[in-house]
Amino acid sequence: MQFSLKRSFASDNNAGIHPQVLKAIQEANTGHARGYGSDPYTEAALQKFRDIFGPGTETFFVFNGTGANVVGLQALTRSYNAVICTEAAHINEDECGAPEKFTGCKLIDIHCADAKLNVQAIQTRLKHRGDEHQVQQQVISLTQSTEFGTIYTRDQLAAICEFAHGHGMYVHVDGARISNAAASLGIGFKEMLRDTGVDVLSFGGTKNGLMLGEAVVFLNPELASEAKFIRKQSMQLASKMRYLSAQFLAFFEEDLWLRNASHANAMAKRLADKLSAVPQLEIVQAVEANGVFCKIPREMTETLQKEYFFYIFDEKDNVARFMCSWDTREEDVDNFAAFVAQALA
Amino acid sequence: MQFSLKRSFASDNNAGIHPQVLKAIQEANTGHARGYGSDPYTEAALQKFRDIFGPGTETFFVFNGTGANVVGLQALTRSYNAVICTEAAHINEDECGAPEKFTGCKLIDIHCADAKLNVQAIQTRLKHRGDEHQVQQQVISLTQSTEFGTIYTRDQLAAICEFAHGHGMYVHVDGARISNAAASLGIGFKEMLRDTGVDVLSFGGTKNGLMLGEAVVFLNPELASEAKFIRKQSMQLASKMRYLSAQFLAFFEEDLWLRNASHANAMAKRLADKLSAVPQLEIVQAVEANGVFCKIPREMTETLQKEYFFYIFDEKDNVARFMCSWDTREEDVDNFAAFVAQALA
Amino acid sequence: MQFSLKRSFASDNNAGIHPQVLKAIQEANTGHARGYGSDPYTEAALQKFRDIFGPGTETFFVFNGTGANVVGLQALTRSYNAVICTEAAHINEDECGAPEKFTGCKLIDIHCADAKLNVQAIQTRLKHRGDEHQVQQQVISLTQSTEFGTIYTRDQLAAICEFAHGHGMYVHVDGARISNAAASLGIGFKEMLRDTGVDVLSFGGTKNGLMLGEAVVFLNPELASEAKFIRKQSMQLASKMRYLSAQFLAFFEEDLWLRNASHANAMAKRLADKLSAVPQLEIVQAVEANGVFCKIPREMTETLQKEYFFYIFDEKDNVARFMCSWDTREEDVDNFAAFVAQALA
Amino acid sequence: MQFSLKRSFASDNNAGIHPQVLKAIQEANTGHARGYGSDPYTEAALQKFRDIFGPGTETFFVFNGTGANVVGLQALTRSYNAVICTEAAHINEDECGAPEKFTGCKLIDIHCADAKLNVQAIQTRLKHRGDEHQVQQQVISLTQSTEFGTIYTRDQLAAICEFAHGHGMYVHVDGARISNAAASLGIGFKEMLRDTGVDVLSFGGTKNGLMLGEAVVFLNPELASEAKFIRKQSMQLASKMRYLSAQFLAFFEEDLWLRNASHANAMAKRLADKLSAVPQLEIVQAVEANGVFCKIPREMTETLQKEYFFYIFDEKDNVARFMCSWDTREEDVDNFAAFVAQALA
Repeated sequence: MQFSLKRSFASDNNAGIHPQVLKAIQEANTGHARGYGSDPYTEAALQKFRDIFGPGTETFFVFNGTGANVVGLQALTRSYNAVICTEAAHINEDECGAPEKFTGCKLIDIHCADAKLNVQAIQTRLKHRGDEHQVQQQVISLTQSTEFGTIYTRDQLAAICEFAHGHGMYVHVDGARISNAAASLGIGFKEMLRDTGVDVLSFGGTKNGLMLGEAVVFLNPELASEAKFIRKQSMQLASKMRYLSAQFLAFFEEDLWLRNASHANAMAKRLADKLSAVPQLEIVQAVEANGVFCKIPREMTETLQKEYFFYIFDEKDNVARFMCSWDTREEDVDNFAAFVAQALA
Repeated sequence: MQFSLKRSFASDNNAGIHPQVLKAIQEANTGHARGYGSDPYTEAALQKFRDIFGPGTETFFVFNGTGANVVGLQALTRSYNAVICTEAAHINEDECGAPEKFTGCKLIDIHCADAKLNVQAIQTRLKHRGDEHQVQQQVISLTQSTEFGTIYTRDQLAAICEFAHGHGMYVHVDGARISNAAASLGIGFKEMLRDTGVDVLSFGGTKNGLMLGEAVVFLNPELASEAKFIRKQSMQLASKMRYLSAQFLAFFEEDLWLRNASHANAMAKRLADKLSAVPQLEIVQAVEANGVFCKIPREMTETLQKEYFFYIFDEKDNVARFMCSWDTREEDVDNFAAFVAQALA
Repeated sequence: MQFSLKRSFASDNNAGIHPQVLKAIQEANTGHARGYGSDPYTEAALQKFRDIFGPGTETFFVFNGTGANVVGLQALTRSYNAVICTEAAHINEDECGAPEKFTGCKLIDIHCADAKLNVQAIQTRLKHRGDEHQVQQQVISLTQSTEFGTIYTRDQLAAICEFAHGHGMYVHVDGARISNAAASLGIGFKEMLRDTGVDVLSFGGTKNGLMLGEAVVFLNPELASEAKFIRKQSMQLASKMRYLSAQFLAFFEEDLWLRNASHANAMAKRLADKLSAVPQLEIVQAVEANGVFCKIPREMTETLQKEYFFYIFDEKDNVARFMCSWDTREEDVDNFAAFVAQALA
Repeated sequence: MQFSLKRSFASDNNAGIHPQVLKAIQEANTGHARGYGSDPYTEAALQKFRDIFGPGTETFFVFNGTGANVVGLQALTRSYNAVICTEAAHINEDECGAPEKFTGCKLIDIHCADAKLNVQAIQTRLKHRGDEHQVQQQVISLTQSTEFGTIYTRDQLAAICEFAHGHGMYVHVDGARISNAAASLGIGFKEMLRDTGVDVLSFGGTKNGLMLGEAVVFLNPELASEAKFIRKQSMQLASKMRYLSAQFLAFFEEDLWLRNASHANAMAKRLADKLSAVPQLEIVQAVEANGVFCKIPREMTETLQKEYFFYIFDEKDNVARFMCSWDTREEDVDNFAAFVAQALA
């Protein structure tokens, strides 16, 4: 069965599987493989992560981003702890309370206009340390690239990590779009994350060309000892693991991840350029990754959505989110921008 | 990357993706689809479940069997409830405590030699109803086909459902191998499950030819109202859902599920026949689905495992489990049986 | 063993047991009583609550305020729900995450300068209704009298209840100091709470003269069906329940609760009057119950605390909290005010 | 208000408060004390526990036995762990699933005719260590004296502790009736528990003369670092703590605990002697503490319960439980035994 589906800018998860990733699934589809990760594809993929992030890195493949975040956070917390994040954080806004339910922890969310935490803001919420009446802040969780398409510099990450460790806390990164950040910053994953002191990373694959698959990466391997049990109990252990692992092998083959992410980022820049030429629109966030956040006239929302489905991310200011993906074409961008300009004219 | 992998009888999840299922993934891989199930593939697949199980059926695709069981059980329980199951139940033995953690409920496990519950056994554990000091039995969970390769008849299912409902309880079926049961009984899913009164079913796909994918099927639609929130909070909502749905569409296309399951069952029968001819072996469970449970001489375990990996399911009696799958070939069975006979000779 | 202890204004839980309450414990200390509430003291106390709050009221005694809040909230929620409260709410700030851990719910906290919620503020946080990605707001929890010593009027309560019910939500009241509110408003509990539409109340006893003991009161009896199991599973069921019940009987005898609360309120007014005469001080919240929130010179905090221990409630503005209790004497107030005035002079 | 209540043998929690304990509450009822344990009564009581159990002992007062067990178990576990106990264990049978809900752990319950675990039985359930698919056994929890009135000898405790520690597990003791055990064995708490290697103890007060109050005692102080947060989050932190602490001070004053427990034990022996003379009765458990488990003719249950309420502990064999307490008088025993003998005659 095949349906004819139109491209949109609603989400980078609306794009399909990259052909090389699908090919890898096909190639892995021969013979029998032991389940749950005891197979050579998984062995090779885990080695790949060690090659990239450095010796000792411990990686655990999971199904989706929420699963990755929850498994990582559980490994870092006890139920009386708290996790500091931004108000816009996916863990805070878009996971239906999974982090609270499964860790038992409170999320302390901070309003940050660009969806980026900073030491000063964190400092204001760091209180009652050691007081049994209050939750104990244990983790700072940040998203890279952020839910608003912005990016932490290497220095900004290092500053947060230093602060966290100086206060006996850990740093977790929700990297659902970590490839877009690396492509944008022009640095490697190890440089960006391990060398700055990040403890645990949710490494995203799905939004950058995989069918599905994320990885919980323990850059601080001492924190990984319980992860296999947590993953299983969190319902995130795939039986036919080879098909997740094969995708990750393809992801890293000839830097497919980088090509995909760079392309998506470039398309977002192109889209931002075109849209910023339309007088009725206002780009409200720096376009540093693959998303464009754009204030649009409220009365035009419905008209535009009829042709191109998208989400309003900020109801108050009527800010739409337009995401580019590995398969966005220049003509897609140009057609969409032209359509918007014409509709608003 | 491609590894040469040997076939074994260790588990039906060691087999790969059926070619028609893989083809369906490929065909769905065009254009953009809205995420999280708002796509035509999912719409069609959900309709397929309604066609099969009857009007009103509410179905929710999830990643794996543990996820399916936990989502279904959460929909049926409050944390002070208890779930009655067999000692050998997957939810009791092989899910690392996920049901307890996520529902908060106690599992009341009953030792059943053939891994099949019955009303008499359940009755003995039904006590303290209404007493606040004790957990309140709310769900009877059974596995079809069972963890020991046996099968509940339609009448046995109906008797348990009648008993459950008569006592204000629900019936949950872990159907990781539900296709093997339907194939073995020669009846349809609706006849076997909805018509007998089952409330919620974990419908298995992975072990019968899918890459991954299970479904929580509410045969009693009144119980489904919360399921979408529970699925999301349980980290079981796939963003690129079309690839799960497309697999299920292929699964039902020209009764692929039935051909796969019937074949696996037939191979198990063939294997049981061959093994029962070996004097040192003893088949200890009825071979009603796709598994053969066989007592083997303890001192031979290692020798046999060197050539063909498998699991010992009962350490006390040294009972090995041999599973057949959709891709098991007659020659695989014959070679294995010959190898075992020779090794034991 | 007896220690000589000084009076302070640190908290109303620093006061002791009212003599009539202690006498009731003594009187109940004869013979054997069945455990867990099957005793005549409990029967009489529950009837007392029905007399006060109206027919059908269902009451469950628990040990402490956190226990009362958690039991009540559990009865109203499923784990994918959210509870709306103020930032200053005890459930948000002072229960070490117990509500999150035991209900699984997210708390959505709103900054309110006077610790009072209002419909407009709630409205801004009411979103994503029906969207599985987001927690579903299910309960509005407010504190009466509030953590800042302010009080909701009857109309304000009614407006919030009407709004909540109009949106399919429930209203929970943390009434750790509910007596102080009733005394201040000069109305009965039923008028204030049941007639305005409150669903569940944590009825406080400890801070108003009991040794320990709170009650979860279901004004909407339909919500009470699970409460006895929730209380037991929440570790809040006392075995020698008669001693909690006897205290509540004394609490209501000759309106002891009202005399105690009125007295504490009056002492707070007296204290506020005296302190507002000191030029270096600023009373920053309306003194409507038994607390005085007073901005003091930061450099004097330590000096003052040496003589009279108290808590700084707002570090930023150095706001101290002074609480009066049933046993605060006029001379205690006068001495303290004089001491402060002199120290600051 | 005062009700005339009859004595029974239903439970040791049906007895009241020992006069010396009540006197201690009265004496502590003067002046103000800081809340939550920062008071001299609590300081003295904690020192008393250190005196008794040895230096380094960390003690946390809680409200009730379920609270004590859950706080202790949480300190020892992560949610993927399992707790091994007997089928009859209070944590397994009588806490409405609180341990599962709050720790997330599975309880592995073993049928033991005398409610006493032993190394051989534990050994059979110790499996799948290190396997992520299965819960990881982390704690052995035993009850002293047991739910069936039997007692572990010092050697039996030491053997279980040695086994546990040899397998990387901890030992938790539910000591709701620990005084009865110490009185029966004629040894001190330290000798019985710390010197044998027990890690954490729920120390019972309520059943031996307190109004309410139990203590979580960490004999292995390294395990106590999180306990204060766990207690608070578990809703077990009393605000007016002095009244719990004062009770414990009285409990240890002039060995009140020992006198109470020895008396209750002696009354149980007396009762057993009398009942064993009645031909229709059969004492089915060793009478080592303060309970008598007695098989009675099923048709007489109701007749007997009309006069003296009691619980049937084993429906199958119609075994009644008769408990003696600190306030049971010789004449109570004699009257009851005579009544039973006459009724059965």
